[in-house]
Amino acid sequence: MVEDNQNIQFQLTDALIEQVELLIEQKDDIALKLLLEEFHYADIAEILDEVNLEEAMYVIKLLDSETTSDVLMELDEDNREKVLKNLSAKEIAEEIEELDTDDAADIIAELPEARQAEVISQIEDQEHKAEIQELLAYDEDTAGGLMAKELVKVYETWTVAGCLRRIRGQAQHVSRVHSIYVVDKQEKLLGRLSLKDLLTAKSEQKIAELSNSNVDYVYVEEDAEEVAKIMQKYDLEAIPVVDQNKTLLGRITIDDIVDVIREEADKDYQMAAGISQDVEADDSILKLTKARLPWLLIGMFGGLGAASIIEGFNGSMGEFIILLSFVPLIQATAGNVGVQSSAIVVQGLANNSIDGNIIKRLFKEAILGLVNGVAIALVAIVVTHFVFKTPYLISITIAIALIAVIIMAALIGTFIPIFLDKRGIDPAVATGPFITTSNDVFGILLYFLIAKSILGF
Amino acid sequence: MVEDNQNIQFQLTDALIEQVELLIEQKDDIALKLLLEEFHYADIAEILDEVNLEEAMYVIKLLDSETTSDVLMELDEDNREKVLKNLSAKEIAEEIEELDTDDAADIIAELPEARQAEVISQIEDQEHKAEIQELLAYDEDTAGGLMAKELVKVYETWTVAGCLRRIRGQAQHVSRVHSIYVVDKQEKLLGRLSLKDLLTAKSEQKIAELSNSNVDYVYVEEDAEEVAKIMQKYDLEAIPVVDQNKTLLGRITIDDIVDVIREEADKDYQMAAGISQDVEADDSILKLTKARLPWLLIGMFGGLGAASIIEGFNGSMGEFIILLSFVPLIQATAGNVGVQSSAIVVQGLANNSIDGNIIKRLFKEAILGLVNGVAIALVAIVVTHFVFKTPYLISITIAIALIAVIIMAALIGTFIPIFLDKRGIDPAVATGPFITTSNDVFGILLYFLIAKSILGF
Repeated sequence: MVEDNQNIQFQLTDALIEQVELLIEQKDDIALKLLLEEFHYADIAEILDEVNLEEAMYVIKLLDSETTSDVLMELDEDNREKVLKNLSAKEIAEEIEELDTDDAADIIAELPEARQAEVISQIEDQEHKAEIQELLAYDEDTAGGLMAKELVKVYETWTVAGCLRRIRGQAQHVSRVHSIYVVDKQEKLLGRLSLKDLLTAKSEQKIAELSNSNVDYVYVEEDAEEVAKIMQKYDLEAIPVVDQNKTLLGRITIDDIVDVIREEADKDYQMAAGISQDVEADDSILKLTKARLPWLLIGMFGGLGAASIIEGFNGSMGEFIILLSFVPLIQATAGNVGVQSSAIVVQGLANNSIDGNIIKRLFKEAILGLVNGVAIALVAIVVTHFVFKTPYLISITIAIALIAVIIMAALIGTFIPIFLDKRGIDPAVATGPFITTSNDVFGILLYFLIAKSILGF
Repeated sequence: MVEDNQNIQFQLTDALIEQVELLIEQKDDIALKLLLEEFHYADIAEILDEVNLEEAMYVIKLLDSETTSDVLMELDEDNREKVLKNLSAKEIAEEIEELDTDDAADIIAELPEARQAEVISQIEDQEHKAEIQELLAYDEDTAGGLMAKELVKVYETWTVAGCLRRIRGQAQHVSRVHSIYVVDKQEKLLGRLSLKDLLTAKSEQKIAELSNSNVDYVYVEEDAEEVAKIMQKYDLEAIPVVDQNKTLLGRITIDDIVDVIREEADKDYQMAAGISQDVEADDSILKLTKARLPWLLIGMFGGLGAASIIEGFNGSMGEFIILLSFVPLIQATAGNVGVQSSAIVVQGLANNSIDGNIIKRLFKEAILGLVNGVAIALVAIVVTHFVFKTPYLISITIAIALIAVIIMAALIGTFIPIFLDKRGIDPAVATGPFITTSNDVFGILLYFLIAKSILGF
């Protein structure tokens, strides 16, 4: 219905991939270029993620480096690594020349150390090279690791007319102008301007008059997650980065922050699911096993711990077997409550929406556990007594144990993340298998202790 | 060390809250205004989230509506609801006048229906009112629900000079100029320009010559999550929204998308943790119970199901008790594997990085399960035999059951999310308690079936 000169409706179909593969096989460079030129670089990257390495290399060598540098940035990390291995240092340097400094530094940082120096030495643009080397020195999880050197800055002494003239020059190298930063002769950040301010000002006005001194900034060593929080909270699309003397070093844009937010959310989700490193469904079985086996082993030792607790109580009469058959109920309930409690706390800590008073919070969790526990216990008592025909003392034991276990699981699930957070450990590790395993063990212990005191075996 | 005229280092301290509360008590309006004027509206919102409603109302009535409208947007949703209840329709309308159309529509949508009409009727700016009413008609989870009417557009027939003149007028109402949209006389979207393009062009050039026709857009009824994916994939900071005739209706900016991404990630995380609606640690016990009890009940019925399976096997000799004591081990392992598998699939589906072939994926999971299973089983056989002195037939039973249960849990954890996704159901519901509960039941069934065939009870 509409002419589709934009490719927002891009669909990665098998037919398209086959078409690309066929054109590569036929070495029909003209048709291949014509086809791929229509696509956004992010779409080309999706296609290259699907074909084999040889085919991907063919396309990368075919297209101009302006396009392929962007495609490289969008490739799946594993595939990018393979492609880079197949490019010479000279070829990588050519791609690097086309990229903004932050992306360039990210690509170089992914290379083995020996190759890094080799690639850097091949970069022809000396200024670009120096800037990339500066960025490589910063930790990737800091503001310095996120920032780009590309920005538009003006000196306070300039006039609007002079400023517009010079910005035309600087802006060529900057893909998106967010803010214009105002600095003094020592490059110290003084304020900001928007293009809009410049457009609506008189041409003879001095920049110092227009400059908005209320400029947000972050220090270069600030933690990346903290930068993400600040930019979200204050709805910033770009933020300047300064050193301790307030010298303007670079700027961070919101698209980099979107990646930080996504990665952070993915990491927390995986930790909650007991996956100990960043993996994807398409990773190798070895990589997936490495990420999954550690928590399975910990869970297994929890299960063995529970077994030794049960053997320790060492009953053999009929009642004991009935009690044993309800172990899964106790265990499932303790696990679910623990994960729920810890997830809420972990999320609250991540959003800074949890205030300090740990006693108050534990008290609230205890009440909450009591409410949930009584509800669950009532249902359980009815079902066990009327459906399972369980002896009434055992039904009561189960009901009391459920309430106790739920309260215990809620307290553990709340306490551990807060405790870890105070110790400076990421509380997200405390959700999932960690909480489940400790609750399994403590829950079963509590269950048999309560049973022993009621039934007296 | 640096002068702190920016408030990026804002710290919400008890001392600050006490100071604000004291000034309110003393009705020292001048000092209170002087103090709060220093803060960003997002910081003022944080302060108001901590004081009581009466105090918050005092501050809101004290500050001018330009500030308070922004503060309102940043308040915690529950607190905003309370504040809005305490404002007259006229007062709310005044706040609304200060907000961009998208925020204004969001606030109005939160009001009870009867009040909505009342507030709208009090909005004085007729154009603003009509635009808000238009936005209110769209579903909040669509592009229409995200977009704002504020944008800068130019007609293809204008010249650069004329364009700059008129943009100065339009830009006053737009807080950030991302792109300038080029339309024809029928308001149909033709292309885009950046301010940078305008600045670097000659003043007599026609807009049609400069316009970049390769403009991305989304349809007004597009799903909000889809818009978020598109903007992330193509690194867009703003995207125009059109109807089926390609008439330009509004634009969506990246800061709104950041919220969509965050909310989506939070929702998935909570679902994986068995929390059935969006809650925070500070919510009421009733609200928290409503969110948590449903999954606890489902988990409980799973536990009861497991109990009835165990009773069904009905053994009473010593071997059966030994088998029972390893139920927690089987159950924990099945649960952990299931959650891991489903989390990887759910994340892959969310990132569009999983391709269709379900048989291939299940086969891979089975191999993965076998690898993990053998590793776990070997450790278990050694520990049970040497530490627990378990009879060797039972150790072998446990080892075989572990391998079988791990493969089963991996298959269930992989199959269910893909199946739900194909059915158009959010696969995120399938992680957490859902998978754990079904794996508990099937895992224990499988365990006793294997035990029965080996031990023959």
